[in-house]
Amino acid sequence: MVSSDLQAVPYLTTALHGPLEYLEAHLLAHQSEIEHWLRLQWQETPAPFYASVDLRNAGFKLAPVDTNLFPAGFNNLSHSSLSLCVQAVQSAIERLNVSAHGVLLIPENHTRNLYYLESVATLQGILQKAGLVVRIGSMLPDMKVPQSLTLPSSKKLQLEPLIREGDCVSVKGFTPCIVLLNNDLSLGRPKILEDLYQEIIPPLQVGWSTRLKSTHFTFYSEVAKTFAEQIKIDSWLIDPFFKNCGEIDFMKNEGLECVADNVDALLSAIRRKYSEYDVPHEPFVVVKADAGSYGMGVMTIHSADEILALNRKQRSRMSSTKEGKSIRRVILQEGVYTFETWKPLDAVAEPVVYTIDHFVVGGFYRVHTTRSVDENLNAPGMHFEPLAFVNSCITPDMTKAPNACPNRFYAYGVIARLALLAAARELKNGSKPDRF
Amino acid sequence: MVSSDLQAVPYLTTALHGPLEYLEAHLLAHQSEIEHWLRLQWQETPAPFYASVDLRNAGFKLAPVDTNLFPAGFNNLSHSSLSLCVQAVQSAIERLNVSAHGVLLIPENHTRNLYYLESVATLQGILQKAGLVVRIGSMLPDMKVPQSLTLPSSKKLQLEPLIREGDCVSVKGFTPCIVLLNNDLSLGRPKILEDLYQEIIPPLQVGWSTRLKSTHFTFYSEVAKTFAEQIKIDSWLIDPFFKNCGEIDFMKNEGLECVADNVDALLSAIRRKYSEYDVPHEPFVVVKADAGSYGMGVMTIHSADEILALNRKQRSRMSSTKEGKSIRRVILQEGVYTFETWKPLDAVAEPVVYTIDHFVVGGFYRVHTTRSVDENLNAPGMHFEPLAFVNSCITPDMTKAPNACPNRFYAYGVIARLALLAAARELKNGSKPDRF
Repeated sequence: MVSSDLQAVPYLTTALHGPLEYLEAHLLAHQSEIEHWLRLQWQETPAPFYASVDLRNAGFKLAPVDTNLFPAGFNNLSHSSLSLCVQAVQSAIERLNVSAHGVLLIPENHTRNLYYLESVATLQGILQKAGLVVRIGSMLPDMKVPQSLTLPSSKKLQLEPLIREGDCVSVKGFTPCIVLLNNDLSLGRPKILEDLYQEIIPPLQVGWSTRLKSTHFTFYSEVAKTFAEQIKIDSWLIDPFFKNCGEIDFMKNEGLECVADNVDALLSAIRRKYSEYDVPHEPFVVVKADAGSYGMGVMTIHSADEILALNRKQRSRMSSTKEGKSIRRVILQEGVYTFETWKPLDAVAEPVVYTIDHFVVGGFYRVHTTRSVDENLNAPGMHFEPLAFVNSCITPDMTKAPNACPNRFYAYGVIARLALLAAARELKNGSKPDRF
Repeated sequence: MVSSDLQAVPYLTTALHGPLEYLEAHLLAHQSEIEHWLRLQWQETPAPFYASVDLRNAGFKLAPVDTNLFPAGFNNLSHSSLSLCVQAVQSAIERLNVSAHGVLLIPENHTRNLYYLESVATLQGILQKAGLVVRIGSMLPDMKVPQSLTLPSSKKLQLEPLIREGDCVSVKGFTPCIVLLNNDLSLGRPKILEDLYQEIIPPLQVGWSTRLKSTHFTFYSEVAKTFAEQIKIDSWLIDPFFKNCGEIDFMKNEGLECVADNVDALLSAIRRKYSEYDVPHEPFVVVKADAGSYGMGVMTIHSADEILALNRKQRSRMSSTKEGKSIRRVILQEGVYTFETWKPLDAVAEPVVYTIDHFVVGGFYRVHTTRSVDENLNAPGMHFEPLAFVNSCITPDMTKAPNACPNRFYAYGVIARLALLAAARELKNGSKPDRF
């Protein structure tokens, strides 16, 4: 098992003697202080039930770029993550409702996406192994009778019609006290889930119809600042700059001047930082739907002019996200290069870290063979390499170099937990930062 | 990783169609009920910080035979148990003292036992990875200056003299709020640890100078009975009969009639059960020092006559245990055959399950090539096979047969946690069962 550290781990193509090695060494040197600080944070602000955090490792900078509170992809975690997931679910249930027997799991409606269904089946298995009775309630409007599926992995999945009776939802004969959402509510808060007596986890207000990435990153910036002060680093090393505008409409060319101005301001700010740290790369900005998911409505921009010169196809792509939902708000985020390369394919890779309760339970690399280091990898053609994180995110090893795998992965686990803490504060504040 | 289920797992030599397969199937069928029940138990009675539980699997019966609250052998756990251990320590610390920064670890005094020191180094590593500063305070009376060791694994270990100042113990410049005992206090409660302001975990009264196996098994019987009622099984399937006598002295032949009478009574009781379950084996009884450890002072007996006919060498062996401590009380316990065989060596094996907080974090097989199925395997010549439990104790798989490895290991994890619950009740009651 020792060899797992050496298996199939991406390489940083950039030389590791810049600020990141400094950052890794620094996190490692402050490990006890960091864990102590995080422990106190979780007492104050309990972590979301589960999450996945997309990170980008630029060699000189390590930062989260998206925090998903309805994670899919559990099927991409390594087999050895399973017991960590089970143990973390047990901790979460003890905290949420120690006498819970069962969970009603509400998945996304796209029943034809077999990858997604594999994730649902894996998640169901994790919850069952933790000792919960789990049944799956589908919100598909045309589901009238239970539907049994056998997935490519040979796992079996039974979807049942979700029923609303009084202030409870159930599937036939099963009304547990916990309703676990794995549906990101992109199309809005479904009526069937409003005003329930049961606890919905996570709560409806963090569905993508209302949650904004800009809110998350406002909280993240606060977390990163406090954390950076705590361990005495420049918070920029872990926090991407961002800005947002008011209402925009890419198709009607409305509000794009504000976007262009903000892109300009961001590029200048990044350029100053690149100069301060002698980073020999071109700054870029990523424009994302503020309420987007599934990697849709995302665009890489290198200059303000590009915004004003978008062609019809590009503008159309930025006009709607998952399930055709139109984009009216965008977040402009400092682009963070990913300089990790999946060697066997010489492909660009970015780490995705999974958490359950406040524990890092695993992760994988999202790999894309045709995208480049400054592009969104969450796009058709991506695949996942599940082995790389085996046991590594929580087993830093002081006897090894700061950039040895368990230590780099420890750094990933720390930054992912900072994003998780930001999400926890979002939840606590009803998804609105205090300042808004 | 999936193949780990298939690697190097012992075989039950007995046909698996007796009560154990029934028991495994039954535990699996009641998994959600069991986990729910255990969850509530841990709320009421927090688990000891750590423990190891020796189990015996007779095919027709699965039972704990010893529960160690000062576990060594962490070095024998598989590499993949490491992250489970780290996560469980984090849970334990949150419960015990969320603002703890450091731990003072107090090991056994036998600094020449390199296997033991490897375990201490592994344990220190686990605590460090969980984010604690850990230093090791030795109670060796002749230790005046810190001693640095490089172990065969190349791990480094620094032992420092334990200092008492006022109502605190420390090593030079380090006085953390948690003192973790990994010394079983066979020789008595050391004065240096009495009346401390700091929290000692586990508390002094469960050291082997005062803790009695008969107390533990009294609590275990209560746990087993409640649990057996809960899931409707005969509690004998998981609970070994036992009896104990008053003061005895093997050398002086004092009190041995009581021992012989109790052996007789136990053998009759076991014979009735064997007959009820059509078990085609000879009953036997194990006589153990009631306050013994390290597998010393243990004897297998097949008839009451053997007790009265012990020769001088045998009596002498039963007269003292670790560090020459004399044996005045024994527990007479129903012998549980181990019918597990480590195939590569055709050797007898018994599972040892490790827990941290209330989580099963790993385990291994204790294997002995020259001992037989009715003998104590905790004896010179034993070795450990660390791979077998990889990820398995908490990942039952309903789609597999009840005797498939993850399911057998799940059963081990359940029975080990029942023993852990008994130990938790011991701790809560100051190591005395209510009835005493």
